[in-house]
Amino acid sequence: MASKHILIVPGDGIGQEVTAVGKQVLNKIAAKFGHTFTYDEALIGHVAIEATGNPLPDESLKKMRKSDAVLFGAVGHPKYDNDPSAKVRPEQGLLKMRKELGLYANLRPIKLFDELLDASSIRPEILKGADILFFRELTGDIYFGEKGRKNDGDTAYDIAEYSRYEVERIARKAFDAARTRRKKLCSVDKANVIETSRLWREVVQKVALDYPDVEVEHQFVDATAMLLIKDPRRFDVVVTANLFGDILTDEASQIAGSMGMLASASIGDGTGVYEPIHGSAHDITGKGVANPLASILSAALLLDISFGLKAESDAVISAVDQVLKAGFRTRDIANSQTPADKILGTAAIGEEVLKRI
Amino acid sequence: MASKHILIVPGDGIGQEVTAVGKQVLNKIAAKFGHTFTYDEALIGHVAIEATGNPLPDESLKKMRKSDAVLFGAVGHPKYDNDPSAKVRPEQGLLKMRKELGLYANLRPIKLFDELLDASSIRPEILKGADILFFRELTGDIYFGEKGRKNDGDTAYDIAEYSRYEVERIARKAFDAARTRRKKLCSVDKANVIETSRLWREVVQKVALDYPDVEVEHQFVDATAMLLIKDPRRFDVVVTANLFGDILTDEASQIAGSMGMLASASIGDGTGVYEPIHGSAHDITGKGVANPLASILSAALLLDISFGLKAESDAVISAVDQVLKAGFRTRDIANSQTPADKILGTAAIGEEVLKRI
Ligand SMILES: CC(C)[C@H](C(=O)O)[C@@H](O)C(=O)O
Ligand SMILES: CC(C)[C@H](C(=O)O)[C@@H](O)C(=O)O
Repeated sequence: MASKHILIVPGDGIGQEVTAVGKQVLNKIAAKFGHTFTYDEALIGHVAIEATGNPLPDESLKKMRKSDAVLFGAVGHPKYDNDPSAKVRPEQGLLKMRKELGLYANLRPIKLFDELLDASSIRPEILKGADILFFRELTGDIYFGEKGRKNDGDTAYDIAEYSRYEVERIARKAFDAARTRRKKLCSVDKANVIETSRLWREVVQKVALDYPDVEVEHQFVDATAMLLIKDPRRFDVVVTANLFGDILTDEASQIAGSMGMLASASIGDGTGVYEPIHGSAHDITGKGVANPLASILSAALLLDISFGLKAESDAVISAVDQVLKAGFRTRDIANSQTPADKILGTAAIGEEVLKRI
Repeated sequence: MASKHILIVPGDGIGQEVTAVGKQVLNKIAAKFGHTFTYDEALIGHVAIEATGNPLPDESLKKMRKSDAVLFGAVGHPKYDNDPSAKVRPEQGLLKMRKELGLYANLRPIKLFDELLDASSIRPEILKGADILFFRELTGDIYFGEKGRKNDGDTAYDIAEYSRYEVERIARKAFDAARTRRKKLCSVDKANVIETSRLWREVVQKVALDYPDVEVEHQFVDATAMLLIKDPRRFDVVVTANLFGDILTDEASQIAGSMGMLASASIGDGTGVYEPIHGSAHDITGKGVANPLASILSAALLLDISFGLKAESDAVISAVDQVLKAGFRTRDIANSQTPADKILGTAAIGEEVLKRI
């Protein structure tokens, strides 16, 4: 019987709606398996700026460090997107959280539920059986290097940086995972142009020597963007830098039918953070139509990775699978064949999942 | 009756085979329309390193500057890809050519020939009618900033940089093109994280004021990587930075069925360079199976953009279309329904195109 403290950090936009459902699922698991989960909430992003002027208030960070795991929503607001000169931005909260908690490895499992074969824009025969686990480096690269302006603001610059130990620690995590799967690892870089990529490739080649049982390939990021769509089944574990991982995993969401299905785990030195890969989606915020399945599946990752509760995690995934098998869909994963009465809103599809746990 | 001097720069791998066919097509056009095209050849990439130690010998550069247009193949060699520490690399020749010739705008039209609807891994009903024109900035960004090592080689860095005038000149080209098309422009950046992207967005917003008739949207690169596959028809003209353009256009090749179909034009201050977006493909080099249609379509772009010969350009595109309509395919665009006798090699499909000009 585990006793755990979970911090809910909804953030902005649909983050509020989807983490509310994720929390219900955690509650149901606790009740059913006899665990004690206690909860607290914290602010981040635009809502934190509005309340405190700071996208990641110290109090939020303190709560994160003290909790056993964080269920996170999303950050972002159109107001800042259209104002490139804004000094304080919601995303700074997210980036600071990643850095301060040492969340250097972002795991993004891309797996299509068979029932969603028709929700994707990719042909079913290309997709069927695709199962990729991305390791995106999360605390380095151009995201965290020095950036600024010169020449009276007429020139902007960003510095991308990687050190050996940063590449090595994520590479080892990716190789370890490959060992428990189909034993294939694809490292993605742009070593034909970029120096950080050359360091990346050097280090991955060296780490590979310790994993002779894992088959390694190196691909350029441009070729990978193409191959992911052309032949997704050729990939098992993919490891890549922060920026390339950001782009490739969003692209790969099409393999899973919709971004609304994709969960992620950010882990590293301390508390793990679990979040959908979708963003704050202000266009549908407050309408009750957001797909909460990515947040629910993030809760499943949380149970498995941070708490070691594998059976509980499987119970969540299986409940999602049954809901899809029963024909229920949110709007984003419905298609023209879906009967209108099977298209549910955020809360209603959450109920269906809860019933099946 | 035009009189023009064309430089053929085959480069590495299948570059040799495909530009040979591209040149035959130019010859046929000259004969048929009564133009005089003279030719020369120059070295670049791995073959140039082997011959002279330099990936872009001065002589090649001189020939490029003196010619009216360059038909280019590809550069790259696996030898360097697996040796991240190599100091001299084929790609340096390509990058130097782009910089020295001031080729700041890389146009990549993505359009599916109807006959290839089934060659793509994307569903035909999602694809049909997709028609995107990419403007990739080609002489700035992380490609050309300072890069190196520090901490005894343990840390690598790359500096991404953009100045206002660099963004403005490509933005204007993209807006001008949008005016001649469906009047929609999507500018792609990562302004929520990257400073060069914030400058990019600022400048595009400003240029947009001069084009009130063009509908503008700004998308993040991660979202765009997803949307390109989910709903390619929503895009008309897309303008983006060097690195993002590299990744997104390779991905978008799946919209056109295969990378083997995609041509590009690099233009700017002087001589224009025309090249397939595919690479040197050493795995199929010398086997006579490479798809030359991208090089042929690059020749069509050359005729149109550098020489202003629109009817001649259309004659080439129409010949390619007829060859596809007649059922001929190279291996990369064939599928399980293609009869074996319709699958042709590089030279044979080139012949079919020549016959139809
Ligand atoms: C919101 C943004 C800063 C973030 C990122 O780029 O990392 C998001 O796209 C993600 O993938 O988590
Ligand atoms: C070969 C490489 C340096 C090049 C690039 O990244 O620009 C290629 O991928 C391209 O798109 O032309």
